[in-house]
Amino acid sequence: SRHNGPEPSNGEKSADRHDTTLPKGYSLDPPVLPKEIADAAMRSGGYPYDTRLKATEYEEQLLALQIELMKLQKYNLKTGNRILCLYEGRDGSGKSSCIKAFDEYMNPRNTRTVALPKPTETERGQLYFQRYAEHLPSAGEIVLFDRSWYNRAGVERVMGYCTPDQLAVFLREAPQFEGLLVRDGIKLFKYYLTIGREMQLKRFYERAKNPLKQWKLSSVDLASLDKYDDYTHAEVEMFRFTSTATAPWTVVRANDQRRARLETIRHVLLSIEYEGRDLKAIGKHDPLIIGSGPEFFHPQVEKQS
Amino acid sequence: SRHNGPEPSNGEKSADRHDTTLPKGYSLDPPVLPKEIADAAMRSGGYPYDTRLKATEYEEQLLALQIELMKLQKYNLKTGNRILCLYEGRDGSGKSSCIKAFDEYMNPRNTRTVALPKPTETERGQLYFQRYAEHLPSAGEIVLFDRSWYNRAGVERVMGYCTPDQLAVFLREAPQFEGLLVRDGIKLFKYYLTIGREMQLKRFYERAKNPLKQWKLSSVDLASLDKYDDYTHAEVEMFRFTSTATAPWTVVRANDQRRARLETIRHVLLSIEYEGRDLKAIGKHDPLIIGSGPEFFHPQVEKQS
Amino acid sequence: SRHNGPEPSNGEKSADRHDTTLPKGYSLDPPVLPKEIADAAMRSGGYPYDTRLKATEYEEQLLALQIELMKLQKYNLKTGNRILCLYEGRDGSGKSSCIKAFDEYMNPRNTRTVALPKPTETERGQLYFQRYAEHLPSAGEIVLFDRSWYNRAGVERVMGYCTPDQLAVFLREAPQFEGLLVRDGIKLFKYYLTIGREMQLKRFYERAKNPLKQWKLSSVDLASLDKYDDYTHAEVEMFRFTSTATAPWTVVRANDQRRARLETIRHVLLSIEYEGRDLKAIGKHDPLIIGSGPEFFHPQVEKQS
Amino acid sequence: SRHNGPEPSNGEKSADRHDTTLPKGYSLDPPVLPKEIADAAMRSGGYPYDTRLKATEYEEQLLALQIELMKLQKYNLKTGNRILCLYEGRDGSGKSSCIKAFDEYMNPRNTRTVALPKPTETERGQLYFQRYAEHLPSAGEIVLFDRSWYNRAGVERVMGYCTPDQLAVFLREAPQFEGLLVRDGIKLFKYYLTIGREMQLKRFYERAKNPLKQWKLSSVDLASLDKYDDYTHAEVEMFRFTSTATAPWTVVRANDQRRARLETIRHVLLSIEYEGRDLKAIGKHDPLIIGSGPEFFHPQVEKQS
Ligand SMILES: Nc1ncnc2c1ncn2[C@@H]1O[C@H](COP(=O)(O)OP(=O)(O)O)[C@@H](O)[C@H]1O
Ligand SMILES: Nc1ncnc2c1ncn2[C@@H]1O[C@H](COP(=O)(O)OP(=O)(O)O)[C@@H](O)[C@H]1O
Ligand SMILES: Nc1ncnc2c1ncn2[C@@H]1O[C@H](COP(=O)(O)OP(=O)(O)O)[C@@H](O)[C@H]1O
Ligand SMILES: Nc1ncnc2c1ncn2[C@@H]1O[C@H](COP(=O)(O)O)[C@@H](O)[C@H]1O
Repeated sequence: SRHNGPEPSNGEKSADRHDTTLPKGYSLDPPVLPKEIADAAMRSGGYPYDTRLKATEYEEQLLALQIELMKLQKYNLKTGNRILCLYEGRDGSGKSSCIKAFDEYMNPRNTRTVALPKPTETERGQLYFQRYAEHLPSAGEIVLFDRSWYNRAGVERVMGYCTPDQLAVFLREAPQFEGLLVRDGIKLFKYYLTIGREMQLKRFYERAKNPLKQWKLSSVDLASLDKYDDYTHAEVEMFRFTSTATAPWTVVRANDQRRARLETIRHVLLSIEYEGRDLKAIGKHDPLIIGSGPEFFHPQVEKQS
Repeated sequence: SRHNGPEPSNGEKSADRHDTTLPKGYSLDPPVLPKEIADAAMRSGGYPYDTRLKATEYEEQLLALQIELMKLQKYNLKTGNRILCLYEGRDGSGKSSCIKAFDEYMNPRNTRTVALPKPTETERGQLYFQRYAEHLPSAGEIVLFDRSWYNRAGVERVMGYCTPDQLAVFLREAPQFEGLLVRDGIKLFKYYLTIGREMQLKRFYERAKNPLKQWKLSSVDLASLDKYDDYTHAEVEMFRFTSTATAPWTVVRANDQRRARLETIRHVLLSIEYEGRDLKAIGKHDPLIIGSGPEFFHPQVEKQS
Repeated sequence: SRHNGPEPSNGEKSADRHDTTLPKGYSLDPPVLPKEIADAAMRSGGYPYDTRLKATEYEEQLLALQIELMKLQKYNLKTGNRILCLYEGRDGSGKSSCIKAFDEYMNPRNTRTVALPKPTETERGQLYFQRYAEHLPSAGEIVLFDRSWYNRAGVERVMGYCTPDQLAVFLREAPQFEGLLVRDGIKLFKYYLTIGREMQLKRFYERAKNPLKQWKLSSVDLASLDKYDDYTHAEVEMFRFTSTATAPWTVVRANDQRRARLETIRHVLLSIEYEGRDLKAIGKHDPLIIGSGPEFFHPQVEKQS
Repeated sequence: SRHNGPEPSNGEKSADRHDTTLPKGYSLDPPVLPKEIADAAMRSGGYPYDTRLKATEYEEQLLALQIELMKLQKYNLKTGNRILCLYEGRDGSGKSSCIKAFDEYMNPRNTRTVALPKPTETERGQLYFQRYAEHLPSAGEIVLFDRSWYNRAGVERVMGYCTPDQLAVFLREAPQFEGLLVRDGIKLFKYYLTIGREMQLKRFYERAKNPLKQWKLSSVDLASLDKYDDYTHAEVEMFRFTSTATAPWTVVRANDQRRARLETIRHVLLSIEYEGRDLKAIGKHDPLIIGSGPEFFHPQVEKQS
């Protein structure tokens, strides 16, 4: 009956044994970002801009969106409207920063973030969706999932934490589960944040360097560097099976975190007709940054192959 | 995080204000069963037998079935097999006595009975299936639901505790929810115990008379006397929508509780190929007592209309 | 958020590997009870009677007590009174049969039995009392614990499942925890069922013989035969530390299960002044069977030493 | 089984009906802070400084502390150390901003914030501490309570949400409950943030003016303006009963939020000898800002009376 527990085994998380899994020729020890990576990062994966959104512009827009979120929150409490946003994407894609921008000013008594640890033995014996179902939004609530049941189609698949059978059942059943939620009236938003290979590498360097973020560099993350293409392949298949009319994926190019944060919040606001909605304050989507489901998603590796 | 809570409002449950809702001419105060009801009870609703199964025969068969249940329990623990039986039926149809016969000798650490009270305000704001989902069997478990999510299609519908919209959503979504469970590997059994009008009346008289059972006579139950046909109508529609190939209803004629108990246990045992299963000990179904879904169910009122 | 879960490791529970732990010269395979044990069982441990209470007498008294329980239940719902009974005692002492006699006719929506499996890894990291605290009675409820936090002072101590430090902390803190409950208004009853060595052996033979009860014979149980004196020693110390004025132990001599069941129910009824209490129907305690805390408890081994 | 739920009744939270409860002569509509309040705010309640800590200094110190928190987090995961910090204080005292500074960079899978909504009907029937007990830290976890069981001694008492009896039981039992936690090994920190009357008023004006914070101005908060002295009285008595040797209160003068955030984090770091602790980086306490229990606390009203 608890949201998230400790991961004792995470004890080993550290920036120590990094080199083993880094691409050849690179080292996080010391973590000095090679120039060619730094240069290529922003444009990697076919990103459409050279630079981040300017700070002033970002802050101005964010403020406007956060004020709209206040109205949405009020509207939800009044109507009992339920919202569930889930954020997926590779390690380093900026899921939790999107969530922080969203919930910064929200009332913690009706906006919750859920970041479940890996399943316990008991949970492994249950219906796969059961431990997530416990945290669905109740009337008036907004719940933000930092990773979600899609773990099975991503990290669990790539790292071999589930069997092929379990994966197949998941890909088949996820739309069924989501259909239940959506038809029951829950507003479900599924965001997939996508970043380029060099950008991911750059972010890992930053994590390794930043004492406040080193813990984020788990051995699973480092392994993911070697497995960039495996993850891409997993994503492509995940979209094929689980982007449905009822519960489509929204893809967000996230090399620039600022644009990604704005677009995800904007997307929620544009999707719900709450009282007092100010469309001008919300602004328009940047179609180069956010788009629908698999169509919008053009992974590097797929283009190459 | 609790299985069942108290129903403070049940405080008023008593045999006091009975007469208001009893059919005209009948009284539970004093609760003297009219002869014509007593005579008609066993055959009511088209029941195929005049008398109960003999006690010795019943006990002998039950013992054999309970021994088989031990093997099933062992098999479940070994294989992680999950079983969920739900019992529905009018008040007085004998749901909980079926459950008691089933779990009498089972290990309480892996066989659980779940009897949820009416939903709290918070639960009303959630996904309808959410509070039930919390109690699904984990690996190796058998869970017996005394009433279930079908409350919505029965008592909630008839007593007006839900809106027509909520009812429609339920009838549409229940098969979806059950599909999730079944395809995930949970063995789901849905038993509908059916009794005749006079038998129900007889059982209410018995409850009123028996100091150990008076609390079972709630105002909801007494109201159900007036609404026998409403319940029948509700049942018919429930079967139409929710008896599916993946999760069919099993109907059990329950005027004789002994036969009903034996047949429900037998049905579980015949449905799972556990280690050491002794088909001879289990015996054969009585096709006059137990049958599949709506075909087997011929409610009085429907025949009349 | 669940009452009891499966114990996958219990899969090995069986009557197979019995002989290893049985006292020399005895065998459960085949389980033929030696005559000297059978003869000594009822009087073992200093039991004051030669024979069980007669069935008719037992049933008559039980019925009267169960009718009183109905009044208690009604009173609880009306007043919000909360009752917690916990049952401890060696394996085979009849804890669960006492509980069954108590809750046989109670409304399952306000009387719950809690039989927790061994703690999970996560639970081991928590406050020891935490997983029990989740199941405390709410307003109007009666909760019956089949074993309890006292596992630590009994099986965990004797089998080495806890450290001496954990044991000491437990013996020191249990009265503190119970104080919280009692001063908050929860009516706490702690029953210790005591049986003689030969009676325990006899019950194990019966379990081994009875296909419906073989699962109850766990390896932990069989080990307990060798450790009869260790358990006795553990009990004596448990009483010393945890029989307090606020939460005293009630000891029940349980070689005759019928008398034990009657006395435990009677004890609850005599302790609460519910509406309509019929002292004559309840009857008087048998002071040879039930008594208070350590004074009443005269373990064989202690007398010998 | 959920951390925090919505407060449907909070729907009415708004900046609308403000004037009714504001001190005479003041208005939040429009919310223009009177000059005399603005001038008096920082020094109110006997605050020892005229100005906030400079931003650069604050950020530098905070960074150093947050880096130390990383080491603490690592140490906890390794040792299973459990930490529970609870934050109390009037509305507007900056509890949640202290918590945000603490958990900004922590791993959400082992640092949790708990902000429970008002109790449900079921919870009201339980042991008062029960719903809090569910959220205690497990091995390796840090749990931050935004308000806590002390609600009973504060808002519930002042607003009349509990009876005098319940209050008395709480004041008597809280040390008992906390003793259980502390003796079990949980590191318990109880922070009381204290602000002056004018500072509180100033913060309410800021909330009223800031569209991102208006929701924080509940009717309960506004009522608290009228009841400044009642709250002070409640605090004084709370300290008397609940500042114990095992679980002392730490009082933090919080007119300057920056200093308050630094001192609370610093206090945790100075209290635990984790691996690699850098006492120089942590720095020293400012004895004008943080101090122990009731001695350090000199409420205005008490001095006046
Ligand atoms: N107001 C209500 N809303 C929804 N369900 C209700 C309501 N009142 C009673 N029920 C449900 O109707 C069923 C029958 O009620 P009742 O006869 O009082 O209880 P019992 O199941 O103990 O016989 C129960 O499952 C109960 O949860
Ligand atoms: N490894 C263990 N750690 C703590 N408690 C245990 C352990 N193994 C068994 N127990 C406890 O010992 C008690 C007796 O065990 P067992 O005889 O296997 O179960 P049962 O209660 O079904 O007879 C149970 O309460 C169980 O939870
Ligand atoms: N009726 C009530 N009974 C008990 N506690 C209450 C009640 N109403 C509010 N509270 C508590 O008082 C505190 C302050 O209330 P409020 O200002 O509305 O919430 P917030 O904590 O969001 O500022 C909260 O902890 C809330 O749970
Ligand atoms: N053994 C595992 N089985 C399933 N999921 C895991 C496992 N290990 C890590 N994960 C998940 O993988 C994601 C990333 O892990 P990490 O980066 O190590 O925090 C988290 O959502 C974890 O819950």
